[in-house]
Amino acid sequence: MITPWEYRYALRTQRMSSSIIREILKFAQDPEIISFAGGLPAPDVFPVEQVNEACNRVLSDFGPQALQYSTTEGFVPLREMLVSMTDRGGMGVNLDNIIITTGSQQALDLLGKIFINPGDRILVESPTYLGALQAWNAYGAEYIPVPLDEQGMVPDALEEALRKGPKFIYVLPNFQNPTGVTLSLERRKILVELADKYGIPIVEDDPYSKLRYEGEDIPPIVLLDSQYRNDDKHIFNGNVIYLNTFSKILAPGLRLAWVVAPADVLKKLVQAKQGADLHTSTFNQMIACEVFKDGFLDRHIEVIRDVYGNRRNIMLEALKDNFPTGIEWTKPKGGMFLWITLPENMNATDLLFKAIDEKVAFVPGEHFHPLGGGKNTMRMNFSNATPEKIKEGIARLAKVVRREMAA
Amino acid sequence: MITPWEYRYALRTQRMSSSIIREILKFAQDPEIISFAGGLPAPDVFPVEQVNEACNRVLSDFGPQALQYSTTEGFVPLREMLVSMTDRGGMGVNLDNIIITTGSQQALDLLGKIFINPGDRILVESPTYLGALQAWNAYGAEYIPVPLDEQGMVPDALEEALRKGPKFIYVLPNFQNPTGVTLSLERRKILVELADKYGIPIVEDDPYSKLRYEGEDIPPIVLLDSQYRNDDKHIFNGNVIYLNTFSKILAPGLRLAWVVAPADVLKKLVQAKQGADLHTSTFNQMIACEVFKDGFLDRHIEVIRDVYGNRRNIMLEALKDNFPTGIEWTKPKGGMFLWITLPENMNATDLLFKAIDEKVAFVPGEHFHPLGGGKNTMRMNFSNATPEKIKEGIARLAKVVRREMAA
Repeated sequence: MITPWEYRYALRTQRMSSSIIREILKFAQDPEIISFAGGLPAPDVFPVEQVNEACNRVLSDFGPQALQYSTTEGFVPLREMLVSMTDRGGMGVNLDNIIITTGSQQALDLLGKIFINPGDRILVESPTYLGALQAWNAYGAEYIPVPLDEQGMVPDALEEALRKGPKFIYVLPNFQNPTGVTLSLERRKILVELADKYGIPIVEDDPYSKLRYEGEDIPPIVLLDSQYRNDDKHIFNGNVIYLNTFSKILAPGLRLAWVVAPADVLKKLVQAKQGADLHTSTFNQMIACEVFKDGFLDRHIEVIRDVYGNRRNIMLEALKDNFPTGIEWTKPKGGMFLWITLPENMNATDLLFKAIDEKVAFVPGEHFHPLGGGKNTMRMNFSNATPEKIKEGIARLAKVVRREMAA
Repeated sequence: MITPWEYRYALRTQRMSSSIIREILKFAQDPEIISFAGGLPAPDVFPVEQVNEACNRVLSDFGPQALQYSTTEGFVPLREMLVSMTDRGGMGVNLDNIIITTGSQQALDLLGKIFINPGDRILVESPTYLGALQAWNAYGAEYIPVPLDEQGMVPDALEEALRKGPKFIYVLPNFQNPTGVTLSLERRKILVELADKYGIPIVEDDPYSKLRYEGEDIPPIVLLDSQYRNDDKHIFNGNVIYLNTFSKILAPGLRLAWVVAPADVLKKLVQAKQGADLHTSTFNQMIACEVFKDGFLDRHIEVIRDVYGNRRNIMLEALKDNFPTGIEWTKPKGGMFLWITLPENMNATDLLFKAIDEKVAFVPGEHFHPLGGGKNTMRMNFSNATPEKIKEGIARLAKVVRREMAA
């Protein structure tokens, strides 16, 4: 029997897609499984003590304020901190350009809410972040995928895609989820110019930029766009909306992120967020502000870089030592993920079920491709498991892969 | 010049409406203004010390878990606590029926996301909660308003509205925001029967039920629906989705609420929430769980009832002592609001500007009417201001009202 609610849901045009990652993470609950499937930071680097001290100070000094409703834009001292973190190179960013969101996932949802009509097409990297597809599928988005190589989106393919008139471009420039690929400086400049030429704006999603383990920082697209415009009015009003998060540099369990956007877009985001959750937890915003004062952020990022950089090295080494020829993988200079490409005829989803029998898990890469494809690819997280588990997990996985290739 | 972002926003079919309450609250920042405009709990009753103790315990015992990503449904021990709080009268509620949301505002947004197509009509009380209208306007909802009297929605008007085929019914049965009116037991039973007769499901939004200052609790609609079905399969699968929140019984700054829904609806809510913010803050969920164990909730609600009940009495008395004849107001048995009706020819928005000159604020009632009307009505919050401020604020307001009536 169909209930009245089911009937009503069936009438709804835009459907939600269930996440395969979610289903897979259920397996990963088994403590014997070594999981490279999640996108989890290492819990051992969370600054638990600093958060606890911050809680005590916030509650003893500003208890009632911390537990009360607050404004939709976010806690002003936190936004002021983000203005000074963001306003590199005189982009003219000020308080009117910053909103705190309940994680970057909410920023993606709000962008969908204010920009996407059913049938609108979004230009995305292929593969791209699954959470963005999930957020925008709910608004009836369609996608124009642009293939990646080791330098990021391929310019010819990008220009061809721009000619199809996407609503906006979605790009993760640094150590992209899922591939770990970084968009080179040259290609960032090409992206800025092409976006301007075709009049298509850019959403830059940048959760991993601080997690660099080798090489030099590359300027964010938002800054390059500002320089390209050579705009000395000191008003932030370019072609780019910039997303970043506290999930990777502090703790995801607090659900804190921020958006930098032109003031007119920010007003729309504020209206959308009001209807979505009124505001982000006052208490958590005050905790982040308290933890990060006095330069703690820089010291803490060094710790994260050491731990994650080491885990990346161990995974790369283990892959080299254990995996047969004919399999390739990316060598990310930062972030939390690398990307494995199996021989054309192999299927990563089939492989996953066999891997789970051997107590190791990953995410099949096809789910990151908005229009399908990539059946022989897989995403591997290297930030969450300990070095010993990484070595053991890669050894288990190599056994499954070798068996499969021999079959 | 129109920016690429503005142009794209202009193309979007569903627009966000700006909140007049939000604009008014900006005035209320002036410390000299006595504001009855907000919907704020009294900060002096927040259990700051208990929250601080809970933070310390959660972080020292489960620090890394509290700061990590967690499941979309919510923290299991908190959901288990809510199962036992909710499953009165053997409704058969279990874990599969409960999701934690980032405030009830998010629950409203998620309901919009899974049920509302542009042009769908929602049956609402008139006046109704502004936040629901804001959430659903973004999905292109339209409204069928049903007028209220002192017993809640008028049955004849309700049946007439049901014949128009709304997607669902939205009702705040206890001490409704904005009027303070409570739906009587008899009318709740009629609502359950009519909803069943016309096959239209019900969203019951119940943030204030624990804030009762006189009289006896009335069973929630969700329970009456379950009894009406006389369903002894012990499966929660009726006609009602039930919303409640920690904002009024603990603290709104933590952004914690919950939804009780049939399992098939809950699955859709989980998918929608995944795309909206992944999950609600792990830390905050663990804090709530820790604060409320060992029966603290019941003791704390007694404190809130004393403080708010007293403030309600003081406001009612001050209105009686100061306001001229020809003006009427509701006498709510709980909650945070009462509703004033001015003479037909008076305009509450005009009055507000004059009131602000006298350093007192409220919300004009017309904004709570989805199709307009109610220009001579106003919403008054009695939970936030201290007794002294309530007396002084009502005296100031009475002066403005008298002057206006004499003009």
